[in-house]
Amino acid sequence: MDLRLDGAALTAKLVDTPSVSGDEGPIADAIEGALRSLPHLTVHRDGNAVVARTVLGRPERVILAGHLDTVPVAGNLPSRVQGSRLYGCGTTDMKSGVAVQLRLAAALTAPRRDVTYIFYDCEEVAADRNGLLRLSRHRPELLAGDFAVLMEPSSAQIEGGCQGTLRAEVTVAGRRAHTARSWMGRNAIHEAGPVLDVLRGYVPREPEVDGLRYHEGLNAVGIRGGVAGNVVPDECAVTVNYRFAPDLTGEQAADYVRSMFSAWPVTVLDVADGARPGLRQPAAAEFVAAVGGTPRAKLGWTDVARFSAFGIPAVNYGPGISEIAHTAGEYVEIGKIAECESRLTAWLDGS
Amino acid sequence: MDLRLDGAALTAKLVDTPSVSGDEGPIADAIEGALRSLPHLTVHRDGNAVVARTVLGRPERVILAGHLDTVPVAGNLPSRVQGSRLYGCGTTDMKSGVAVQLRLAAALTAPRRDVTYIFYDCEEVAADRNGLLRLSRHRPELLAGDFAVLMEPSSAQIEGGCQGTLRAEVTVAGRRAHTARSWMGRNAIHEAGPVLDVLRGYVPREPEVDGLRYHEGLNAVGIRGGVAGNVVPDECAVTVNYRFAPDLTGEQAADYVRSMFSAWPVTVLDVADGARPGLRQPAAAEFVAAVGGTPRAKLGWTDVARFSAFGIPAVNYGPGISEIAHTAGEYVEIGKIAECESRLTAWLDGS
Repeated sequence: MDLRLDGAALTAKLVDTPSVSGDEGPIADAIEGALRSLPHLTVHRDGNAVVARTVLGRPERVILAGHLDTVPVAGNLPSRVQGSRLYGCGTTDMKSGVAVQLRLAAALTAPRRDVTYIFYDCEEVAADRNGLLRLSRHRPELLAGDFAVLMEPSSAQIEGGCQGTLRAEVTVAGRRAHTARSWMGRNAIHEAGPVLDVLRGYVPREPEVDGLRYHEGLNAVGIRGGVAGNVVPDECAVTVNYRFAPDLTGEQAADYVRSMFSAWPVTVLDVADGARPGLRQPAAAEFVAAVGGTPRAKLGWTDVARFSAFGIPAVNYGPGISEIAHTAGEYVEIGKIAECESRLTAWLDGS
Repeated sequence: MDLRLDGAALTAKLVDTPSVSGDEGPIADAIEGALRSLPHLTVHRDGNAVVARTVLGRPERVILAGHLDTVPVAGNLPSRVQGSRLYGCGTTDMKSGVAVQLRLAAALTAPRRDVTYIFYDCEEVAADRNGLLRLSRHRPELLAGDFAVLMEPSSAQIEGGCQGTLRAEVTVAGRRAHTARSWMGRNAIHEAGPVLDVLRGYVPREPEVDGLRYHEGLNAVGIRGGVAGNVVPDECAVTVNYRFAPDLTGEQAADYVRSMFSAWPVTVLDVADGARPGLRQPAAAEFVAAVGGTPRAKLGWTDVARFSAFGIPAVNYGPGISEIAHTAGEYVEIGKIAECESRLTAWLDGS
């Protein structure tokens, strides 16, 4: 893999090396090989994750991270340029970001801050397969740093932190009866009405956290109930998803959901903490100054939360477009690739 | 099969001839053989249905009908007597009723009214397999009559007519969105709240029909919605079951349900008309006088509705107990078998 290719060409090369989650071997090999040829970097491999670091003894170390895998190919390979756009599987999410990482890794031989470039596998699948998580267990020392930039699609704007997400099941009980004598029972589906009333009456919090405005959400994402066509049902379960701003921990979020539905049994199914944007950290503040624009809050959950859990403030910043991620028609605006590279260069390059 | 056995012994004999729906051959053969030995009856066979008729030229003809099949055996065979009860699969639903039919068929050589005894198959399974329905298509002349008594379990009380039943799906639409930006969508589960409000606010009609008081019901029997744990769902479907008094036709019942849920698309899934009790017909009035007690409305749906559709008023009257039908512990109070037989004899026997 030739890291002297321009950003768009390098993105195309990465896109044309398919790497659906679990099949990142070839792309990781190519990246590892290219990076090992650069004398200013020390390179490590863990499974299909590759880590390359400058070791210049700088007082600060920052991380640029991106995942190598994509969602399944959807008839959108090979890549193709059309006008100002590069189309293809992974163009937006997030091989254009990976291309920027690689170009910076090659170009910045003596950055102002030490830089750790992380390329990892299995971000698009179940959390327990996540390469960044595995790396944190196998080689925690490689994840040390003062600030991280996750190059997820953000339209070349800084998206700070991320909201947490919690799913819980609210269960409404009733009593079975034959529907021909329904007054002998208690209809759990009817009794779920007040659960929906809570959801309908919900007013989202929009707290400011470290200077960014978040926007929470509480939604039913599933409902099920019913025994048979002639039976008054004795149970109705509503699954809710709470997206919470990073001023709450997962436990606080669970308490909030329990308090909203205090009239019913609530079972928390899963929870992932959010991440505070941490934009007041010195490295982050300089990053914001160098990149420009007005940072906005990241509402969806990303691996910045994992960095946050490691104690490392992190932001999302990449050339892709989050709204079209995972679609067959995904593309990246070619101009954004160079824009991200030049902004990051301005931030990192002390030469 | 010896029809000189007393009612309890004959019931036990029938119960110990298993006849789960679809396997009524042996019991139908035994019944056909026993009836063919009686010179005062003409006997017909259609599949596993048996019809025996007196042909005395009486001005009225009445029908005594019962199904031969049972729900699956549940470790409750052979039959056993315990105290005043006979236990076993089909004791209550409805071989005790069939035993009464058979005893009457043998004993009443010259009843006041001509009598048609119908024994049919596949009542406990899907409507399209129902032996009474099949008989009505193959041999409609055998179902001619002025009044029918269906010997379904009714604790030896007259239960007049039956309520109809209708199932419909009420669909609530929304618009998908990622739950991290839920305000971009419209949550169909939340929007189903007003559907449940309608159900919660429903006040059942309790109309009097031909002198009997019915009691309607409108219930959710199913609800489903949800796309994924992070998606605002775009559809929620509520299945409702309307049990309607026999003063309404199925079409009127459908109109009623559509009017209740006029804000949403309503799809009628299935409907079965009820049956008016018809207790003011002369044969029925004499039946009520002979049997005694206060007739009550039948709330569940039974094959009396089929007779009603054939233009024949019908009631439920049998020794079994409807509340324990289809349970492994079903039983019949032995005393009720003789009681039903003697009341029906008083009504029918003109000798």
